Amino acid sequence: MASHIVLTSHPRGSGGKQVSAVNWGAASAAARGPLVAGLAEPARRNVIGTHSGSYAVYRALAVAAGNLQRDHRPDLTNTVPAAHIGPHPQWGEPGRIVSLDPWGHRVAQEFAAEIAAGMDIRPTIAVTTAHINMPELRDAIEAGRLVPDGDILEASGDVRVTKAAIDPVWYLPGVAERFGIAEHALRRALFEQTGGMFPELVTRPDLKVFLPPIGGMTLYFFGDVSLLGRPETRVACRVHDECNGSDVFGSDICTCRPYLAHGIEVCVEMAQQGGVGVVIYNRKEGRALGEVTKFLVYNARKRQRGGDRAETYFERTECVAGVQDMRFQELMPDVFHWLGITRIDRWASMSNMKHGALTAAGIQVVEQVAIPDALIPADARVEMDAKVAAGYFTPVAPPSVTELALAKGRGLHA
Amino acid sequence: MASHIVLTSHPRGSGGKQVSAVNWGAASAAARGPLVAGLAEPARRNVIGTHSGSYAVYRALAVAAGNLQRDHRPDLTNTVPAAHIGPHPQWGEPGRIVSLDPWGHRVAQEFAAEIAAGMDIRPTIAVTTAHINMPELRDAIEAGRLVPDGDILEASGDVRVTKAAIDPVWYLPGVAERFGIAEHALRRALFEQTGGMFPELVTRPDLKVFLPPIGGMTLYFFGDVSLLGRPETRVACRVHDECNGSDVFGSDICTCRPYLAHGIEVCVEMAQQGGVGVVIYNRKEGRALGEVTKFLVYNARKRQRGGDRAETYFERTECVAGVQDMRFQELMPDVFHWLGITRIDRWASMSNMKHGALTAAGIQVVEQVAIPDALIPADARVEMDAKVAAGYFTPVAPPSVTELALAKGRGLHA
Repeated sequence: MASHIVLTSHPRGSGGKQVSAVNWGAASAAARGPLVAGLAEPARRNVIGTHSGSYAVYRALAVAAGNLQRDHRPDLTNTVPAAHIGPHPQWGEPGRIVSLDPWGHRVAQEFAAEIAAGMDIRPTIAVTTAHINMPELRDAIEAGRLVPDGDILEASGDVRVTKAAIDPVWYLPGVAERFGIAEHALRRALFEQTGGMFPELVTRPDLKVFLPPIGGMTLYFFGDVSLLGRPETRVACRVHDECNGSDVFGSDICTCRPYLAHGIEVCVEMAQQGGVGVVIYNRKEGRALGEVTKFLVYNARKRQRGGDRAETYFERTECVAGVQDMRFQELMPDVFHWLGITRIDRWASMSNMKHGALTAAGIQVVEQVAIPDALIPADARVEMDAKVAAGYFTPVAPPSVTELALAKGRGLHA
Repeated sequence: MASHIVLTSHPRGSGGKQVSAVNWGAASAAARGPLVAGLAEPARRNVIGTHSGSYAVYRALAVAAGNLQRDHRPDLTNTVPAAHIGPHPQWGEPGRIVSLDPWGHRVAQEFAAEIAAGMDIRPTIAVTTAHINMPELRDAIEAGRLVPDGDILEASGDVRVTKAAIDPVWYLPGVAERFGIAEHALRRALFEQTGGMFPELVTRPDLKVFLPPIGGMTLYFFGDVSLLGRPETRVACRVHDECNGSDVFGSDICTCRPYLAHGIEVCVEMAQQGGVGVVIYNRKEGRALGEVTKFLVYNARKRQRGGDRAETYFERTECVAGVQDMRFQELMPDVFHWLGITRIDRWASMSNMKHGALTAAGIQVVEQVAIPDALIPADARVEMDAKVAAGYFTPVAPPSVTELALAKGRGLHA
């Protein structure tokens, strides 16, 4: 370890060691080259940021506290994916995937020689298996909507899944292109609007890959993952953006957990019919505004003159946050390209934004599956009406102007 | 907006505007002074980092994409807390609270004059109310363990809660002291081991407060929040560290969601008896290692020679991550000081690490409430045995060496 602090804002000598080139979008891992984001040898790094998203801060704290060796290298023995995913042709198509590393789960195999030679190359994706059990699935069995098959779904409600965790990896020129802006404008905003995070964003235009300190996503697969990417494979899917209050605690102000559970039901059915179900869980709490902003908006909605109602639903968010939504569905389709999916047969979402992003990315959505009305909590009517009025799909007639003006949400102390 | 990019690594003129002093730990908000972390006027900032934890990256993306005005100021009308929390004497006791801003929910009131004068001061804590409904609570009613009272708990399983979202705010000298290390060593590790995030950590020792881009916590209160801080108030509590796979999807490899649901049951009971229940949900996925590392470890556990067993449970984590755990319970007691809690009457956790941290912080734990054995999934036995062998509390005899060597976990393809 150097005894002096080296600022990262400008390039420096690599101490005789070669920095690996990154050819993003190349058709093979070898041609693309490894991403070197570890910190033991700073001179060999070829990306901005480091592993594990925001948990890098905890790792830094562990080093500071003397609990973790600063030159620790992960022992990747026995960690390779529990199921094969790819490679798919999309991995080598320019501009298709810009926000994750398609080779991220395969580094222990693809770069075995480099790792053996001492390079610190780590997975950004991990694939394992699990059994899950949600009370709602047991309810679905009891109600006769789901029938246990003893393989995918047990009578106990246990469901066999394959799952994947994905850390974000941004190819900055590709992200800029996706938003139709110049790369330097993107880099400057990322630097300035985070309070000066990573000066390399503006001082090192030669570094094109950024591992942002944000949450990633988790995929849950139902059925045989190896069938993905074949045109004949039928696919069911729900893309779910995190909502801790509903997903974990069952808050009744929104439809998040009910729609998630319903989406899993649709996925289990598809797997039982020989297709594959995929649930994509994105760590984008409160429309990527974070939970503090979300709770401030709840208070503003419930206290406003006239009560909590659909007609002012988005306005209240915009007053506090400056925007209605920060989830950027523009990057969302990348994971479908990673999975080789070109057609979604059953799509458990009525979001026009998600649908639009998929269509723009060339992914066909055959059938949209609405959440059954009986699963919508009464207090979530405000959200549902507001979304439908804003273009969210609905199988029934959208609410009238009079409807939208009705206070349907509870007050703060009801 | 300046047409040139200003690097943040060194101080600069404040353009004639005064930078507010921060007197951390002062007894009043006025004496402490506001934290200015907004980006519209960089010269007035008196902290490192900015608001909303890692969601700042999405906000930056929104500015880059042209969706958000870079000088947007939140309209805080009607957003003030839905319940009073504090001030408590602990807020002014040196070293008591170093990882959150005790005044973070009250900025709209405490700094009303400064905000009206144009300073960009934002809440780091928001307090609202909700109704939650978890299937496990309906099961508890059905089993007769919980009895609806029509107020805290409805016959439908609906529970009335107050809840608070808290973004992390670190006072760096205090955090360093908590870990027994020098402030400059902490700052240097935070800079270097994140891949160079925020050079101000090393170049601006005058800035003592850091808003790290990590997840915060959510508190769920059961009963009357205003009773907290009084010595006669009985308190029940569970401190829960996020586990998305179990908390949301019900993965059976651990006891996370079952223990969370059980903790909520204990909290509801306490509220029904006139006390207060508090669930503290920390965004520290996979022991703050992140989910990619967690899934790699699952694979290594299940594939190792001899199968998934308690005796090698922590070893497998350490091989991959370099440590067994990165949650740093040292900072966890801060939230109890914020709530004025000095005694926890019923503590729904058997973690020796959490217990030790509370005791070290002078918070008394009267009774530890174990998760009932019937709620532990079969596949979670490996985790439970390993924890008990490592010092985790248990109401029964700890497992023998022979027990620990038995493979009790499922294989990857079972």
